[in-house]
Amino acid sequence: MGVVMQFLSDNAASVHPAVWEAMRAADQPQAPYDGDGLSQRMDAAFSELFGRDCAALWVATGTAANCLALSTMVQPHGGVVCHREAHIEMDEGGAPGFYLHGAKLMLAEGEGAKLTPDSIRDVLDPIRDDVHQVQPHAISITQASEYGRAYRPAEIAAIAELARERGLPLHVDGARFANACAFLGCTPTEAVGPADALSFGCVKNGGMTAEAIVFFDPALADVARYRRKRAGHLQSKGRFLAAQVLAMVESGLWLTNAGSANAAAQAIAATTADRLMHPVEANEVFVRCTPAERQSLRARGFGFYDWGDDAARFVTAWNTRQEDALALAEALAAL
Amino acid sequence: MGVVMQFLSDNAASVHPAVWEAMRAADQPQAPYDGDGLSQRMDAAFSELFGRDCAALWVATGTAANCLALSTMVQPHGGVVCHREAHIEMDEGGAPGFYLHGAKLMLAEGEGAKLTPDSIRDVLDPIRDDVHQVQPHAISITQASEYGRAYRPAEIAAIAELARERGLPLHVDGARFANACAFLGCTPTEAVGPADALSFGCVKNGGMTAEAIVFFDPALADVARYRRKRAGHLQSKGRFLAAQVLAMVESGLWLTNAGSANAAAQAIAATTADRLMHPVEANEVFVRCTPAERQSLRARGFGFYDWGDDAARFVTAWNTRQEDALALAEALAAL
Amino acid sequence: MGVVMQFLSDNAASVHPAVWEAMRAADQPQAPYDGDGLSQRMDAAFSELFGRDCAALWVATGTAANCLALSTMVQPHGGVVCHREAHIEMDEGGAPGFYLHGAKLMLAEGEGAKLTPDSIRDVLDPIRDDVHQVQPHAISITQASEYGRAYRPAEIAAIAELARERGLPLHVDGARFANACAFLGCTPTEAVGPADALSFGCVKNGGMTAEAIVFFDPALADVARYRRKRAGHLQSKGRFLAAQVLAMVESGLWLTNAGSANAAAQAIAATTADRLMHPVEANEVFVRCTPAERQSLRARGFGFYDWGDDAARFVTAWNTRQEDALALAEALAAL
Amino acid sequence: MGVVMQFLSDNAASVHPAVWEAMRAADQPQAPYDGDGLSQRMDAAFSELFGRDCAALWVATGTAANCLALSTMVQPHGGVVCHREAHIEMDEGGAPGFYLHGAKLMLAEGEGAKLTPDSIRDVLDPIRDDVHQVQPHAISITQASEYGRAYRPAEIAAIAELARERGLPLHVDGARFANACAFLGCTPTEAVGPADALSFGCVKNGGMTAEAIVFFDPALADVARYRRKRAGHLQSKGRFLAAQVLAMVESGLWLTNAGSANAAAQAIAATTADRLMHPVEANEVFVRCTPAERQSLRARGFGFYDWGDDAARFVTAWNTRQEDALALAEALAAL
Repeated sequence: MGVVMQFLSDNAASVHPAVWEAMRAADQPQAPYDGDGLSQRMDAAFSELFGRDCAALWVATGTAANCLALSTMVQPHGGVVCHREAHIEMDEGGAPGFYLHGAKLMLAEGEGAKLTPDSIRDVLDPIRDDVHQVQPHAISITQASEYGRAYRPAEIAAIAELARERGLPLHVDGARFANACAFLGCTPTEAVGPADALSFGCVKNGGMTAEAIVFFDPALADVARYRRKRAGHLQSKGRFLAAQVLAMVESGLWLTNAGSANAAAQAIAATTADRLMHPVEANEVFVRCTPAERQSLRARGFGFYDWGDDAARFVTAWNTRQEDALALAEALAAL
Repeated sequence: MGVVMQFLSDNAASVHPAVWEAMRAADQPQAPYDGDGLSQRMDAAFSELFGRDCAALWVATGTAANCLALSTMVQPHGGVVCHREAHIEMDEGGAPGFYLHGAKLMLAEGEGAKLTPDSIRDVLDPIRDDVHQVQPHAISITQASEYGRAYRPAEIAAIAELARERGLPLHVDGARFANACAFLGCTPTEAVGPADALSFGCVKNGGMTAEAIVFFDPALADVARYRRKRAGHLQSKGRFLAAQVLAMVESGLWLTNAGSANAAAQAIAATTADRLMHPVEANEVFVRCTPAERQSLRARGFGFYDWGDDAARFVTAWNTRQEDALALAEALAAL
Repeated sequence: MGVVMQFLSDNAASVHPAVWEAMRAADQPQAPYDGDGLSQRMDAAFSELFGRDCAALWVATGTAANCLALSTMVQPHGGVVCHREAHIEMDEGGAPGFYLHGAKLMLAEGEGAKLTPDSIRDVLDPIRDDVHQVQPHAISITQASEYGRAYRPAEIAAIAELARERGLPLHVDGARFANACAFLGCTPTEAVGPADALSFGCVKNGGMTAEAIVFFDPALADVARYRRKRAGHLQSKGRFLAAQVLAMVESGLWLTNAGSANAAAQAIAATTADRLMHPVEANEVFVRCTPAERQSLRARGFGFYDWGDDAARFVTAWNTRQEDALALAEALAAL
Repeated sequence: MGVVMQFLSDNAASVHPAVWEAMRAADQPQAPYDGDGLSQRMDAAFSELFGRDCAALWVATGTAANCLALSTMVQPHGGVVCHREAHIEMDEGGAPGFYLHGAKLMLAEGEGAKLTPDSIRDVLDPIRDDVHQVQPHAISITQASEYGRAYRPAEIAAIAELARERGLPLHVDGARFANACAFLGCTPTEAVGPADALSFGCVKNGGMTAEAIVFFDPALADVARYRRKRAGHLQSKGRFLAAQVLAMVESGLWLTNAGSANAAAQAIAATTADRLMHPVEANEVFVRCTPAERQSLRARGFGFYDWGDDAARFVTAWNTRQEDALALAEALAAL
């Protein structure tokens, strides 16, 4: 029997029908690259969403989104403060080193893979203003975090305030930004705070091959356009990427899909409160369990990743079936 | 009246129905990144096509394909011999400088944007083996060339022989490799010669968002996999890219589509032999004409790029309508 | 009263008379760059010193030596295992990021800034062989370490054995290699073990503007020569750097000078055993002391760096006067 | 018989006694790196020389000076307009690619390796403002040029005017700036024009291991200080480099030495006007001559480089003996 109930990754989920439909509709001759009408519409779509002027670029992956955004903020001789378990540090195959030309990731602590002003200061304050030490040029946080934790608006605001004090731009990795918004119940503007750029995730949320970088400072977007081409990320049929992003953003699908995924995660978490490694605030559920327990779950048809030796990670998606989530909840409760 | 007959770029063409169909079929839960069955099938598909062991990776763009391929061959302190008008020199926004970490493009001459052993030697021979001068690490040619010219198998073989003599790997930019094969009527193996890597174009040929890098030396592919991730080009739903590539390769669609595009180009060229800047050997037609003539063509509904002050470039695609090609041919004849 | 007894840094010490003399003797017309007789003699001098074939290059700084050496071992998409407090991580202004084109430093633990096979394994073992994670390409250790600790030959051998098992080249940062050898009383060959490259320090040991990179694998040196030029480190009057290095190496001055510096450090340490942060095995003495105590020492004419809030670092040099060392020892004893 | 009259390179010349003396005087304990009094004096020395606020850094080589200066002006995705035969293009082993992280050299034409506003426009004007093409970020000229030609103040001013119009900073490679000033008889301020940074050569002019980068915009110097460290060019005994530079600049030695070298070049050129490839305006004499003629000159004890197949390059230095220059002049006249 193969895996029938998949909680491996939201990356593995299907593409939402509305995304398919938008892509189909985009299949007509158009100006290549980002000269088409759909690509041109992205700035307006995000400006509307965030209630302020935005400049937005599509790219194929979250890694490219994060690194291109940061490359507009960080000189090669500088550094980026991020969490020790941030995606840019752990899972991008050294892409920040490539895109930032050797700039340094400066690793900060924080519960649930979330930074705090204090944990950022712990990194910043010991750095002498001295050429022997790499100087910080930016801060990057992840909303929701790598452990599915959401920054509250006040938390973001406090970090942004510190960033402003120190003259550091703020980047938000929002691969699961939609999940954070759905959980927080706040506006996207509150959930991103006064950041300078946001990697706005779509692929994990029902998209296929498109993410967006949203720049709240248009001057950065102008640099990013050159960097995107230089990184081989300016696709000639960009209209198919723009179509995906617009299908997500213009209709509110981004939030609906994330809400569904979050609900499934909550259903799973409901029965296993005592085993949870982290409060569930997005679409990821980290559950303490033994190898034998994991084996038994797999035998029952559940797919997921081990998380170290003593835990498992379950990820829900926009299309997780309620019965699968409940089955998993039940199975976890029965462990 | 808008443009109704578009010869701007094969990049602007529609996606072939078979590609759509393959993408649709790929929309089921699968291992993320390149762990899915479709991605895993690519090596076999290209090994079959070329009659020797190949390792193939999908990427989103030709720029990424070229630069990732070269990054496996060229150290940062080395150089790549290419034509002065090669795509990597002219149109990639400095991507080779990025991917090769500052390695140098060493520009050679050659009619129709094609290199010859002699024109390559003209670059190589004056380079002293001396640390003050950048040393060549690879050769890159384009099949078909940037002016739509096809290297004959004997021409490729002669370049490959020189490359071997000098210990230089050979890369082939095949953004329009299919068009070259269709024109030459030879096997793809003959059309690529004993190269080390080929950027195999799909997007200009009816694909949507996927190109392939074909490595004839699997050791290079192993490096490229790390570099692809590091460049943010490892897409999590890679199955949709693999589907496009397989739809092209496994069924012979790549050759059929290119044949259609080539035929349209020949139809256009047939009436304007005396105005042609270059023999038409693929799907591009470069026509000498004045600004006034171009204006008149545009007024009649033809879309195309100016090529400098005195010429126009017309590009056909897999779906160029015969009547449009004939209309253009007639209009050119009537200039 | 200014500082009269300087223990700030061996970098601040005078140039040894024999070095001056050798530089003077080098001041005659010679082939530029490294074509002169002195530069050509370096390979032989180090081959003699280490009893095996070496290829040696002069460079201006230890940072350049370390980074050029590593650049021959590490691909841009790889990483270097080093101690969390290694000079390359802490004090080189991000130079490894620059020279290695964004490769990653992978930080290991270890008492006294020394790595052990176990602490290296703690870094290596969790790394999945997976493109999402940076893979290790080399190991770098410092002999003597940043806390003035010397690796015993058996310790180096165990690390080298692990490196060999994992297929990782081994680099030794020997900014104070001479001090380690003088302390250990072993041959330089034993003190470096079966490493692939050594940054052989001279500037801290009575030199002026020259360090050496010693390659035990000549193929790496051939790459390093190109990289040195590319980094702007191929000096046109290189004979003056070669002269410094040869003055150190050919006569045994390197060991004599280090012995003097070590003796001064031992004299200082002798009276403060209970305050020592680290055993003294080279020419650095780290002493726990309060701000008030440091102020009192400075008031008495001693120059040194604070080491955090609770300690001071005293560094001796080849020309530290015995009476100054004894005066410091006495002052520390009297705290 | 060995070579007795050396015209190979000013790089091979001896170190001037005043430089030696200044280095000797610098050999006392001082703050390391550039914290010493001599390094601190450099800004004032150059501000005095140029009659405006300057910030100056020592570095070991002209390659490092050029590339560090440019690295403060050019983003990795940009380009530098320079002459096709500029030192940065021809002789720096790809260092600009390294220091500028893959930025592109944009090659312009011009007689005697000098750019003109027109030749710069020929490069700039065809560049579309389009992400597919690398955009210019700076202009670099060489004073005196690689063929020993001096830009007149009006020529520099015209280029600077164009640079300002296009928003491009201007860098001057002054490896032989002193020779240009000595020839022009103008102030250094006139000879550099309103440039943003100057690589001020010392090594070819009687120095040993120090060049200076002079920034006319202090903000660029602040970036350069970090980049210098990151490139391994911040020497710990920097006082010995500062001493060399100050010995050159504060006393006027830079101009006297260059005047001597120029006079020797004029003496040589005087007898061979009809064979000169370029007017002699600095300390280089390019003479058309056959291989047999070159062999005969070498047989008579003259050392020099071949310049292609049909010419020779003779370089004079501050210490070229008058009798050697006259002997060469005579030998050339007798060819």
